Amino acid sequence: MNYVRNAWYVAAWANELAPGTPSAIRILDDPIVLYRTESGRLVALEDRCVHRLAPLSLGRCEGERLRCMYHGLLFEPDGRVAEIPGQDVVPAQARVRRYAVAEKHSWIWVWMGEADRADEALIPNAVGLDHPDYILGHGHLDYAAEARLINDNLLDFSHLSYVHANSFGASEDWARDRPKITMLPRGIRFERWVPAQSGFRSGGGPPVDAWSTYDFLLPGILLMPSASHPAGTAEKCGFGPPDPALPASGVTFTSQAVTPLTDKTSRYFFSWGPRRDCGDEAMRDMLMGVAAMAFGEDKVMIEAQQRVIDTTPDPRIMPIGSDKGVVLFNRLVDRMVREEREGNRAAA
Amino acid sequence: MNYVRNAWYVAAWANELAPGTPSAIRILDDPIVLYRTESGRLVALEDRCVHRLAPLSLGRCEGERLRCMYHGLLFEPDGRVAEIPGQDVVPAQARVRRYAVAEKHSWIWVWMGEADRADEALIPNAVGLDHPDYILGHGHLDYAAEARLINDNLLDFSHLSYVHANSFGASEDWARDRPKITMLPRGIRFERWVPAQSGFRSGGGPPVDAWSTYDFLLPGILLMPSASHPAGTAEKCGFGPPDPALPASGVTFTSQAVTPLTDKTSRYFFSWGPRRDCGDEAMRDMLMGVAAMAFGEDKVMIEAQQRVIDTTPDPRIMPIGSDKGVVLFNRLVDRMVREEREGNRAAA
Amino acid sequence: MNYVRNAWYVAAWANELAPGTPSAIRILDDPIVLYRTESGRLVALEDRCVHRLAPLSLGRCEGERLRCMYHGLLFEPDGRVAEIPGQDVVPAQARVRRYAVAEKHSWIWVWMGEADRADEALIPNAVGLDHPDYILGHGHLDYAAEARLINDNLLDFSHLSYVHANSFGASEDWARDRPKITMLPRGIRFERWVPAQSGFRSGGGPPVDAWSTYDFLLPGILLMPSASHPAGTAEKCGFGPPDPALPASGVTFTSQAVTPLTDKTSRYFFSWGPRRDCGDEAMRDMLMGVAAMAFGEDKVMIEAQQRVIDTTPDPRIMPIGSDKGVVLFNRLVDRMVREEREGNRAAA
Repeated sequence: MNYVRNAWYVAAWANELAPGTPSAIRILDDPIVLYRTESGRLVALEDRCVHRLAPLSLGRCEGERLRCMYHGLLFEPDGRVAEIPGQDVVPAQARVRRYAVAEKHSWIWVWMGEADRADEALIPNAVGLDHPDYILGHGHLDYAAEARLINDNLLDFSHLSYVHANSFGASEDWARDRPKITMLPRGIRFERWVPAQSGFRSGGGPPVDAWSTYDFLLPGILLMPSASHPAGTAEKCGFGPPDPALPASGVTFTSQAVTPLTDKTSRYFFSWGPRRDCGDEAMRDMLMGVAAMAFGEDKVMIEAQQRVIDTTPDPRIMPIGSDKGVVLFNRLVDRMVREEREGNRAAA
Repeated sequence: MNYVRNAWYVAAWANELAPGTPSAIRILDDPIVLYRTESGRLVALEDRCVHRLAPLSLGRCEGERLRCMYHGLLFEPDGRVAEIPGQDVVPAQARVRRYAVAEKHSWIWVWMGEADRADEALIPNAVGLDHPDYILGHGHLDYAAEARLINDNLLDFSHLSYVHANSFGASEDWARDRPKITMLPRGIRFERWVPAQSGFRSGGGPPVDAWSTYDFLLPGILLMPSASHPAGTAEKCGFGPPDPALPASGVTFTSQAVTPLTDKTSRYFFSWGPRRDCGDEAMRDMLMGVAAMAFGEDKVMIEAQQRVIDTTPDPRIMPIGSDKGVVLFNRLVDRMVREEREGNRAAA
Repeated sequence: MNYVRNAWYVAAWANELAPGTPSAIRILDDPIVLYRTESGRLVALEDRCVHRLAPLSLGRCEGERLRCMYHGLLFEPDGRVAEIPGQDVVPAQARVRRYAVAEKHSWIWVWMGEADRADEALIPNAVGLDHPDYILGHGHLDYAAEARLINDNLLDFSHLSYVHANSFGASEDWARDRPKITMLPRGIRFERWVPAQSGFRSGGGPPVDAWSTYDFLLPGILLMPSASHPAGTAEKCGFGPPDPALPASGVTFTSQAVTPLTDKTSRYFFSWGPRRDCGDEAMRDMLMGVAAMAFGEDKVMIEAQQRVIDTTPDPRIMPIGSDKGVVLFNRLVDRMVREEREGNRAAA
């Protein structure tokens, strides 16, 4: 698996982790148990008892600690074994790996590199469910496919014209047009205008210029505001980013996160909804319905693609023009993975 | 997989391929998409886009062509890419494999060797559903077993006395008797008489001599007429093939085809029914009921056999007398596979 | 798989093998067919026809013999082929492996070593369903886990305090206390007193001292009587085994057997119930209800443990104090397996 480890991966929706109830997740094939302690602290440990490899996620929270419910070993939040029933001495090496973990923007994020190097400033600026300006729906979808294939999908929106012809309803002109692509320190920015005469289906109102932009950030986080402006705005802006003060309608935000569970399975977390001044709960529910349909279309295509890859002896791709974002992002990943491995070798 | 590639494999019942709707099939582990063009042409292509390996069978027929519905690449019936959205130049090497394909006797046949060497004269003489002389039922059955095990089954009818004791109702004498076996250019012919006093259950009418014969042809096609004659006919014919002009009753025909999907899965296509002067739709339905029971019996045995083989470290068989047809056919396959490979090496 | 072959494995409950109906079982990954002959003899053969590897368990009992229902080969109870339909000569090497098999204590036992070395004196002293002194319920449970993990579970009852906190209801003191462990020629004996003031939940009657002991014998047989005695008995016995003549209440017996089917699947057979003077059918049913709950708790934990092991590149355990029985038993297994292999090499 070719993924950056020094990054924050979304492990769960924060509202799905109840205090005192351990929860299992697999990230980059590492088994991880998450729990909230009595004092409210969030803990992420290797989900594998040192004794006989039972999963700690079947365990019991006791105050700040977690007890393996096979033979009773008790673990500290830092991974050390605090107690072995009926035994006075606990060996010093008796510990499981601790992961740095943070709760932010309604997601629980796990840092897959060395816990001591975790930097919360690197958590992407998703819009959480509690953001005062937005009315958001949310969910997740499990894939029988490698996370990289989902990232590739999200890095080339030309697929909207084909995969999503029936849901998002992009025309074929959309696929032929190319967005402006800019490198970010840990990702890529896509920007384009869809003028009033082309592109997406309108809602039936007056013609609008749609400003289409999103950031795709390590390890696989998509952050996308959407907005429509009166026809002519694109030209007024010189086809650059619109001033936030300009009049806008249909403003929404979607945050999405792709997490590699194993080498062939992934979890896809997402939220979407209108800005409070542009819609209500009904619009949120309508958008979530469109998302459910569209993400189902992606899942059918990507899982089928994975099956073809799995049964192809020497699978090769043939890059095309619309792959620019895919190529740039994967090159960034390759470079960072290489640097991580060199860093690890230097440290060793 | 030890199968002849220069042969026509049954890919589908022709009536199951609707115009404008691509259909996926796997033959010899090759992923293949079938479709009918607007003008009615039949096309078989590698079911794997050159771009990112999405299956073309999730695509959209456009006139004579097929569009990949992931990022919109458009394919010609010969496999070449005609269009890449938003890109002026299409690389010359952008093409998928084309397979020769033919529709005959109500089946769609795919030639698994080089398309240019395909010879329609080699399509076996099955009896199609539209044959004026027969009233045929048809169906298919999927196996979790290697096609060769099904071929072996069909090449040794001694199993009728055991596997089909309850359906076809062959006596144990049937298994002890040996048919005459003759080599054909691309298969084997089995012939025998079952005199009035022995063998299959009679239908309650006057005693008959049953003439039992079938051809088993590459790659796995069984063609079997059946007929009963007044008692004494076998002797009158010197126990050779009966003259077609002789009075006959209970005349039926079954065409069967075994297609290797992958190395451990197969599809079994079959039709059966009476000659128009010997039965009606009710008899056809009765025969299909018997076939459903009997083919279910085969499936239970062959899939169980496959599971034993799969869990046996070094599986070896011990040939017996009734295996003669199996041995001769597999020897033919081995020789032709060897010649194909030598031919390919010489060509390379 | 690291298991002793010169041992009796439980293959089935005797009451589940109907006369004339062959039954398939896999032990140590060997496919075995069991059947009772017309004369009542019990036969265990390799479940794999010499001809084309069809399973004989799909066959037909004929008197003392078993016929393969694919092409009709007939097998003697000693594994030799008696008949090949339509063939005069049967090759001398045409035979399947015979296993020594015995019916005792309501179980059918198969000796997995050389049949000629089978010694029925080595069958453990389980309490059969027909034992006059006991009223027993019985059942079995299939595991998606290696048998050794179940044996390990049964060799360390400290897990009762955690896995079975809700069913058997052992306190955490139970886990901290260590039983006396004694080696037996083919197993291990565990013994301890649980004095009236501690340990298991009482049934609401007067305080009792519970005598807790069980034997765990090769290949994976647990035999456990339970009894309660008036408070003070433990001390009177010097904390040694109680005299059988002492007054006792709540006397029960459970026999359990762990059989490795394949390297990752197992079958767990069990019976439990009160001694006739200490309970009735209602108590038996109550105990079976507790067992169903408790064995379900074990299954959840052990199958989860197996999944963690399967996805851990180099799984290592860290033994703790309560593992003493596990370590001693596995050491015994390792020694006997080594001796068996050396014996086989010497014999070869």
